[in-house]
Amino acid sequence: MAEIRQERALRTREVLLRAAAEEFDEKGYAAALINQILARAGLTAGAMYFHFKSKEDLAVAVMNAQRHTIEPGLNARGLQRLVDITLVWAHQLRVDPLLRAGVRLAVEQGSFGMHDASTFLEWREIMVACLVDAESDKELMPGVVPEDIAEFVVGACTGIQLYANLVNGREDLVERTVRMWELLLPGVAVPSAARRISLDAERGRAS
Amino acid sequence: MAEIRQERALRTREVLLRAAAEEFDEKGYAAALINQILARAGLTAGAMYFHFKSKEDLAVAVMNAQRHTIEPGLNARGLQRLVDITLVWAHQLRVDPLLRAGVRLAVEQGSFGMHDASTFLEWREIMVACLVDAESDKELMPGVVPEDIAEFVVGACTGIQLYANLVNGREDLVERTVRMWELLLPGVAVPSAARRISLDAERGRAS
Repeated sequence: MAEIRQERALRTREVLLRAAAEEFDEKGYAAALINQILARAGLTAGAMYFHFKSKEDLAVAVMNAQRHTIEPGLNARGLQRLVDITLVWAHQLRVDPLLRAGVRLAVEQGSFGMHDASTFLEWREIMVACLVDAESDKELMPGVVPEDIAEFVVGACTGIQLYANLVNGREDLVERTVRMWELLLPGVAVPSAARRISLDAERGRAS
Repeated sequence: MAEIRQERALRTREVLLRAAAEEFDEKGYAAALINQILARAGLTAGAMYFHFKSKEDLAVAVMNAQRHTIEPGLNARGLQRLVDITLVWAHQLRVDPLLRAGVRLAVEQGSFGMHDASTFLEWREIMVACLVDAESDKELMPGVVPEDIAEFVVGACTGIQLYANLVNGREDLVERTVRMWELLLPGVAVPSAARRISLDAERGRAS
């Protein structure tokens, strides 16, 4: 019984999170309405308040759910895994409202008085893990520090999706991500590793 | 007489722009108040409405004034000029409210229903001009396209300042900009040019 209740609660939370993401993705934080989120979720306010106390609470949860939307389908490690993660991210940003809303809220958070770096730091950790593997596999150029690359790539990805969103609704974000790696790999990877790494945009669609 | 009136009008506009920038920089778009902007400027609503019809009008003007806050003090061209512009930008973002507000509004604009790429495209053009010189001076790696580099650097700078702002109030943005170039130059510049280019952080302070 307890397990069934717990499972149902988790499902309700997930439904709320998705409904909130759709609302935030379409309208942004300020214009999003709790009532609309409940209508999208088909739930009552009571069901929501069990999980989230406020619109801000929902926004924080959506903002910090980004990483669960990304799982590279291909089995790779080191630099190739890092590349794959960014390609999946670029592809998913075009189709997954949870990721879109998370990124939008993270970028616009200053406008509603929030100052929360956690999603950026979480991406940083995910990338550092790939880069530490890359380092131990001798893929990195001497003197290049995994943490520096990770922080730069998190920042750069944040900015290129913003730019792409303004100029063409992120239509060519996957191609922009490939170009980022074409520019970065010579400074990051030893030549033998750079040659081995595939920047095939289709890797972002594999699952 | 007409000239004096015009000069006075330009000065009033500049005072309003600076006052608005301070207000937007501190509070963001939603919380900024016209009355506070007027109080900061020491002007009446009538003086403002001659230049700007609304808070949105002021925000657009602040957002698009960014480029006037950046003038590299050092006389350089090509890639070195591009590097210098980003170093001045990183330095000025810590001290100039007009640039800070412009960048903040450009990043958060989605939250107040705006969708205006012009400041990004203006930065793109400034950078393309440097890169076209770099190309004719044979500084660029073969196959590297000035427009691609410019769009990537505009996006990357936007994102790294956002990341730096969240983790440490942009305290180390100049160092992050230097690291960006350390990672990028091997993929962008031929080795002889890469060796010649100075990434001395102090170049951002020169004027």
